Amino acid sequence: MQKLNEIISKIERIDYSLAEKTQKRLDALTKPQGSLGRLEELAKQIVEITKNDNPSIKNKVIFTMAADHGVTEEGISAYPKEVTPQMVYNFLRGGAGINVLARHAGARVVVVDMGVACDLEKYQELLIKKVNYGTKNMAKGPAMTRNEAVKSIDAGIEVFEEELKKGIDIIGTGDMGIGNTTASSAIASVITGRPAQDLTGRGTGIDDKTLAKKQEVIKKAIGVNKPDAKDAIDVLSKVGGFEIGGLAGVILGAASKKIPVVIDGFISGAAALIAYRLEPKVKDYLIAAHCSVERGHRIILDYIGLKPLLDLDLRLGEGTGAALGMSIVEAAIKILTEMATFQSASVSERINK
Amino acid sequence: MQKLNEIISKIERIDYSLAEKTQKRLDALTKPQGSLGRLEELAKQIVEITKNDNPSIKNKVIFTMAADHGVTEEGISAYPKEVTPQMVYNFLRGGAGINVLARHAGARVVVVDMGVACDLEKYQELLIKKVNYGTKNMAKGPAMTRNEAVKSIDAGIEVFEEELKKGIDIIGTGDMGIGNTTASSAIASVITGRPAQDLTGRGTGIDDKTLAKKQEVIKKAIGVNKPDAKDAIDVLSKVGGFEIGGLAGVILGAASKKIPVVIDGFISGAAALIAYRLEPKVKDYLIAAHCSVERGHRIILDYIGLKPLLDLDLRLGEGTGAALGMSIVEAAIKILTEMATFQSASVSERINK
Repeated sequence: MQKLNEIISKIERIDYSLAEKTQKRLDALTKPQGSLGRLEELAKQIVEITKNDNPSIKNKVIFTMAADHGVTEEGISAYPKEVTPQMVYNFLRGGAGINVLARHAGARVVVVDMGVACDLEKYQELLIKKVNYGTKNMAKGPAMTRNEAVKSIDAGIEVFEEELKKGIDIIGTGDMGIGNTTASSAIASVITGRPAQDLTGRGTGIDDKTLAKKQEVIKKAIGVNKPDAKDAIDVLSKVGGFEIGGLAGVILGAASKKIPVVIDGFISGAAALIAYRLEPKVKDYLIAAHCSVERGHRIILDYIGLKPLLDLDLRLGEGTGAALGMSIVEAAIKILTEMATFQSASVSERINK
Repeated sequence: MQKLNEIISKIERIDYSLAEKTQKRLDALTKPQGSLGRLEELAKQIVEITKNDNPSIKNKVIFTMAADHGVTEEGISAYPKEVTPQMVYNFLRGGAGINVLARHAGARVVVVDMGVACDLEKYQELLIKKVNYGTKNMAKGPAMTRNEAVKSIDAGIEVFEEELKKGIDIIGTGDMGIGNTTASSAIASVITGRPAQDLTGRGTGIDDKTLAKKQEVIKKAIGVNKPDAKDAIDVLSKVGGFEIGGLAGVILGAASKKIPVVIDGFISGAAALIAYRLEPKVKDYLIAAHCSVERGHRIILDYIGLKPLLDLDLRLGEGTGAALGMSIVEAAIKILTEMATFQSASVSERINK
């Protein structure tokens, strides 16, 4: 807990006082005041986070963390668990959705094995932070030990800090793990206090019967383990996953270094919930990329108080929505830093200003 | 009318039969079926439009058309009409919002004088297609002659065809013209049959008193001119603008050459209404980039039957929303053409497929 507590203690409030000054700059640009809507909001948020008047969004990194889930033995997923390592290889070879969209956004993808249930082949680009070979079945007992939960968050912080040395202006979160919508629904149900069925969706695409079973399994897991909603580490250990803990660590690490975080979909949302519960100040560092089709995602975003940028009916995860969202944030910063002012462009200002 | 009728006669139905085949290809990619939501819809639409299995979205062009509006003498705008030419120079020097966002999206901006009320300095990049020195005050009579309306559409077609020679994969529309939300509200009110107040917003940011006046002016213009809703040329001539006619021409020209069109905000929406009224088949070539804050925009999109991609509270025009939207379309095509398949990546398919 020492590393985690140290990082949490370093997370400062963003500097709200910079918003007014930044809005004045935005208002001097050759456009009607406020006419770039959420791009202007984003530009202000990035200045508040970075405390930099002229921030640059060049080094973009998406952390895609993978792990397996013991709860898959309950038969709650549309895909077999072998897909977790298979997709990790797909990420490393550049053929997955996240690779395509990260390339499009000019972002680098950092692939991390947080707890895949087998030993993966070595790849130079693969970071191994395996906490264990998948979690245990949460329907029968805790998914992991408390120590493992802390270790997963610490590992996320470490990965972030290692990558930060290469230069990072903004990060995105992403996930891979067959069974991880089940863990995320359980986390979200416990932390938000909403019933499991409100937070449980079809994941990668299960049918009605499997959905009903998934909801039962989540209720059972919460009943068996009785996670303490006020203790995020307890929630993570009892019904979480290693990639979710890792992403919570990445989020906390980024906030401690004043780096904006674009969170992806439902699983990233569950990780954000853990991070937010550990340190509510984290909220202002977060940008919700999109609203997932996964039904619980909107509830998570509302709970933290985040308004998604995009609503494109995505439900893939991996960081795909974050990649698209990052590009919008970069556009917002270019507006702030590259547009001409009324004065520099000799454009008349409004009548009766 | 000859050129216009010729172009309209060349607009074919998009090939709906390609959707199923393309969805099958999307379903073979390493992601749960349908999990990329609207990106998958866009990929299918682009294949249907281009009739190309492996379309590429590389050459992106935004047509930003400028003109003045005689109705500004009624005092319905927040900015003086001098801003129209001043902003054209800003576009040409690269300092406007559209320049920043087009650079971000990797798009080229084609700036066209369709009817600015003064002679502009020569710039190599400025296309002069001036139909007249601004429209007449529509509150007192027709904004332009029927001949000028046709000429403005023809000029838009010409501009598109000239640029097409340099290579175009997708286009976006954009506008500049102090007073042009007034013209757009009037067009939309006549064509959709909805009352002017439902379609009249604050444009660049007018106060309540000016908004009430703007609504009165629009009602008066419609009353004085009695545009025939069934005759789009009549509507354009009586309450339109030269840049709106030009953009309608660009849209029709693009559809006739099977090029997808990303439409921007409210003014582009009014141009799309004119094009759609002239040839309803145009609809399937259109992608609505975003939903503007300008209240009538949603009504226009609903009338044509378009669902906006983005909702970022934008209301700048110029093509800014189209630039952001284009980037999403490009991402969608990269998904279709760059992702690995389950087979090529050796990833297991769903259980009980």
